[in-house]
Amino acid sequence: MSDTGDQDGNRSYGRKPFKRSRSHFADRITADGRDGWPVEAGRYRLVVSRACPWASRALVSRRLLGLEPSLSLAVADPLQDDRSWRFTLDEDGKDPVLGIGYLSEAYEAREHGYPGGVSVPAIVDVPTRSLVTNDYQQITLDLATEWTGLHRPGAPDLYPERLRDEIDSVMEGVYKDVNNGVYRAGFAAGQGEYEAAYVDVFRRLDLLSERLAGQRYLVGDTITEADIRLFTTLVRFDAVYHGHFKCNRSKLAEDRVLWAYVRDLYQTPGFGDTVDFDHIKRHYYQVHTGINPTGIVPLGPDLAGWLTPHHREQLGGRPFGDGTPPGPVPPGEEVPARGRP
Amino acid sequence: MSDTGDQDGNRSYGRKPFKRSRSHFADRITADGRDGWPVEAGRYRLVVSRACPWASRALVSRRLLGLEPSLSLAVADPLQDDRSWRFTLDEDGKDPVLGIGYLSEAYEAREHGYPGGVSVPAIVDVPTRSLVTNDYQQITLDLATEWTGLHRPGAPDLYPERLRDEIDSVMEGVYKDVNNGVYRAGFAAGQGEYEAAYVDVFRRLDLLSERLAGQRYLVGDTITEADIRLFTTLVRFDAVYHGHFKCNRSKLAEDRVLWAYVRDLYQTPGFGDTVDFDHIKRHYYQVHTGINPTGIVPLGPDLAGWLTPHHREQLGGRPFGDGTPPGPVPPGEEVPARGRP
Repeated sequence: MSDTGDQDGNRSYGRKPFKRSRSHFADRITADGRDGWPVEAGRYRLVVSRACPWASRALVSRRLLGLEPSLSLAVADPLQDDRSWRFTLDEDGKDPVLGIGYLSEAYEAREHGYPGGVSVPAIVDVPTRSLVTNDYQQITLDLATEWTGLHRPGAPDLYPERLRDEIDSVMEGVYKDVNNGVYRAGFAAGQGEYEAAYVDVFRRLDLLSERLAGQRYLVGDTITEADIRLFTTLVRFDAVYHGHFKCNRSKLAEDRVLWAYVRDLYQTPGFGDTVDFDHIKRHYYQVHTGINPTGIVPLGPDLAGWLTPHHREQLGGRPFGDGTPPGPVPPGEEVPARGRP
Repeated sequence: MSDTGDQDGNRSYGRKPFKRSRSHFADRITADGRDGWPVEAGRYRLVVSRACPWASRALVSRRLLGLEPSLSLAVADPLQDDRSWRFTLDEDGKDPVLGIGYLSEAYEAREHGYPGGVSVPAIVDVPTRSLVTNDYQQITLDLATEWTGLHRPGAPDLYPERLRDEIDSVMEGVYKDVNNGVYRAGFAAGQGEYEAAYVDVFRRLDLLSERLAGQRYLVGDTITEADIRLFTTLVRFDAVYHGHFKCNRSKLAEDRVLWAYVRDLYQTPGFGDTVDFDHIKRHYYQVHTGINPTGIVPLGPDLAGWLTPHHREQLGGRPFGDGTPPGPVPPGEEVPARGRP
C-alpha cells in the first residue's frame, strides 16, 4: 500500500512513531459479485508502482496466474508529486485506458473529497474510472481464489485450502517483522523505535533462513502467497532497505540461504520479470526526502549476482505444483534494461 | 583532517562541489627544530578524534612507533558542536593536560581570530597551549622520519628511503580515489558528481584488490605508511561509507582480498586497538545532518567478522620488518567495549 505508508512515514518523521495506514476501500471483486464487483475479463485495471513492494505482490500474482489478458495493467511513475501517483510514464501523461493523469482521480470518482492517502495497488473499474479497492492485503488473495475462472491453464494454486492456516500464520510474522518491519526501521521517529524494528527484522529473517535451509518454499512444496509476500521485500533488501532504511546488520547476499531462496524466485518466470530495480531505487531515494534530503540515488548494489546459480532445485519442490510456469511477459510490459541486472 | 572537510562538505551540500580544505598550519616538528619546533619528549600533545580517518593515521603511527610515552594523546568527543571538536569525554569537559574545552582554543592561541575550520589531527605545544600543526598529510611522515630518536626499540621503518617513490605514488592514488573519494561521493552536490566519485572509488579498490591478491602489504614486504593510509579508510568502509556515503557497489566484506587485507591489519597490534566503531558511527551519522537528518545511528553492520582468520600470513611478508610488534595499549587509552567487535 505504498504510498500512503511511505508518505505518512516520511512526513511523520521526528514527531510520532511510524504507523501503517489501513486501506480505506476494501470492496472485494468476487466470483459471485456480492460487493457489486463481479470478476469479469477486461472490466478492471490494476494500477501499480513497480517500486512498491505491496503493489508488486499483485504484479507477481497476475503473472503467475496468467491474468494479464483479463486484468490490464497501469504502471505509475516511481516518483510521486504533491498529488501522489501519476501516469507520467505514459504518452501525454495520461493512462491510455482510464484517461486520467493521477490515480487520485479514480479515488475522487469513488468518493468525492476523499481526504486520505492515495495508494497502490489499486484496482479501478474501467467503465466508471472509479476505484474499487486499494486493499493490499486482500487483492492478491482474491486474484488467487476468486478470479479462478480467468486463470490460465496450468495456473498454480497460490492459496491452497488445506494449507491456509499455515500460510496465514507465516504471512503474519512476515508482515509484522519483515514487510512492515523495514518501514518501521526506516521511518522510525527516534533511535529506540529504529532499534526495536531492526531487531525484529533480523530476528525474523534468521528464523526464515532456518526454515528455508531445508525446504525450497515457505509452506508445502510449491510456491504460495507466502513466498510472494516475502519475495517482494527480500528483492528490495540490499537495494534500498539495507542502506536507506538502515537495516544493515548484513546484506541479504550475506545470508547463504535467503540469498539463494530469493534468487530462485527471482529467476522463476513471473517474479524477476516484474521487478524494476531502477524504479525501486529512484522511488525510495528520491521520494523520501525526510531521510535522504540530497535525493542522490546510489549506483549500487551490483545486480549481477541475481542471475547466478542458486542450486535450490536440489531441495526438491514443485514450483507450480501440478501446473506450469507462466509464458513470456506480454509485449509492452517488459521491464526496461536499466531496471534489470 | 576531519572535520574541516566533513563540515565544509556538509555545509556545501547542494550548492557547490565538495572540495577538501588544505591544512592551514603546516609547521613541522623536526629533529633539528628548523621550524622552531624540535622533537622533544613530553612537549607536544596529539589531538585526535577516533572517528576521523585522517586523525586515525596518527593514532596508528604513534602506536606502531611506540611514541605513546613521548607524545601524549587527547581524544575529542566524536560529536562536535557549533564550536567544533571538544573535550566533553574528559572530566569537567576539559582536556586534563591542556586545560581547554575546545580544540579551537589552541587554534586561537596560535592565530588570534583565525577564521578557518578546526580539524584533527592536531599537534599542540603543551607549554603554550598553542597549535603547532594540523597538516594531516605531513604529521605521520614526520612521526616516522623525524621522531626517530624517540621511537621504541624494534619500531618499524614506516617510510623506508628506498621505497619512498613507490609509497608516494601508491598513496597519491589512494588519497584521490579512496581516502578522499568516499568523501567526494558522500558530500557530492549532485548525482553526476556522486557517480563520478563512486566510479573512482571502486575502480581504485579493484586495482588495489588486484595488487594485494599476491602480496601481503602495499609496498615491499612490510607495513608502511601506505598501508596505514589505506587501512583508516577501509576499516570505516562497511560501517559508514557503504551506506551513509552511498559507496554501495559492494561491501568491503564482499571483496575476498581487501577484506582479508584489512582484517590482517586490524588484528595487528597498533591498528585495530586504535579503532572505535562507536565513535566512527556516531560521528558520521549524527554530525552530517545534511545527509542523515534523522540522526539515527544504524545498529549494523555486525562486527564479529573482524576477528575471523584472514590467512594472509600465507603470503609471507614481515609485518614489522626487522622490528617487533608494539606492546599493549597504554592504560587509559583502551577503546571501550562498545566500540569493539
